[in-house]
Amino acid sequence: MKKTISQATIDRLPLYFRTLQLVESEKTSIISSDELGKRLDITPEQIRKDLATFGQFGRKGIGYDVHELKNKISNILGLHNRWRLAIVGVGHLGGALANYVNFASLGFSVVALFDKDKKIIGTEVNGIKVNAVSSMKKIIDKRAVDIGVITVPATEAQEVADKLIAAGVKGIWNFAPIKLSVPSEIPLVNEDLSIGLSALSYHMSQD
Amino acid sequence: MKKTISQATIDRLPLYFRTLQLVESEKTSIISSDELGKRLDITPEQIRKDLATFGQFGRKGIGYDVHELKNKISNILGLHNRWRLAIVGVGHLGGALANYVNFASLGFSVVALFDKDKKIIGTEVNGIKVNAVSSMKKIIDKRAVDIGVITVPATEAQEVADKLIAAGVKGIWNFAPIKLSVPSEIPLVNEDLSIGLSALSYHMSQD
Repeated sequence: MKKTISQATIDRLPLYFRTLQLVESEKTSIISSDELGKRLDITPEQIRKDLATFGQFGRKGIGYDVHELKNKISNILGLHNRWRLAIVGVGHLGGALANYVNFASLGFSVVALFDKDKKIIGTEVNGIKVNAVSSMKKIIDKRAVDIGVITVPATEAQEVADKLIAAGVKGIWNFAPIKLSVPSEIPLVNEDLSIGLSALSYHMSQD
Repeated sequence: MKKTISQATIDRLPLYFRTLQLVESEKTSIISSDELGKRLDITPEQIRKDLATFGQFGRKGIGYDVHELKNKISNILGLHNRWRLAIVGVGHLGGALANYVNFASLGFSVVALFDKDKKIIGTEVNGIKVNAVSSMKKIIDKRAVDIGVITVPATEAQEVADKLIAAGVKGIWNFAPIKLSVPSEIPLVNEDLSIGLSALSYHMSQD
């Protein structure tokens, strides 16, 4: 399947996935787009349109098979890969991410932590020991890390990205407020916590 | 101005704002959409289209007045309100947000922290003392808090939202993975750190 899917649809898929997980845990085997919509505050039309992008699911007047749909979304998002993460920069944000429980339910696991601060190296966060940045290549290789998470200051982010890629990660999740240069074959997602807050400010300013 | 602006455009405005701040600090007074696009990795056409939504800016062949454009975007986003935030739930994520430096550059400030854990109440994060949830109403009123930030577990989030709204906040920024019920006049933005990571997983799974 090489069809292009809109970013907005991709962003809704994890929400569907998590809701389906919950519904499955409640022993419900069939769900309608109406019910899924009610749980997520998304219109049933939007849900049907999103899911139709990937082929024919669900039966008219009956609904979607919860287990089948959940697995299909997992496959589309690549969650079955059970990606392994390394976080570089174990400050407040890096520490918060190392402890973020939602990742596990989507199949992600944090397997390595790095920092350059001698006071932090050797400490443990959520059962994982913090290693020196200098040992990045060896540890990323040994622990089969797939994704590098960058939570260092903006001034250090490009150097860290270069090191992560040289060490063999296949994707970068960047929290530093800077545009990183990475090879085109390495997917990069930038996260900026100020964007949601600015959107809230915008909505609060309308009357 | 009561024109509806797309969420995607609203999400790009803080990026423009921050880049213009940087450009202004470099003593540059005029910038072209080409140059702005290069810095942000957004096409100049997209930038011109986004900015045209708000009226006529820039002069053909010359560019945008950096100071004027920055202020205009600040006004559109409501950043001139210099919103005051209270964070409820001072765990890893709440602590990271209390320390997140990017907020200040956009005019947001964290002025209150709340938790229900007796071990955390009375400690300080980034110079702000953590107060008991039971004193929320009094402190939110006294410190003129505008925005309530929810970083408690999903099971406690609705109760916290109700308390924040009763205490007088005008907007909610929610990090708990649950759909909250709030009155229609209270803007709500949900943040989910798993979404960006799932998008990265999706891109890494395409070949």
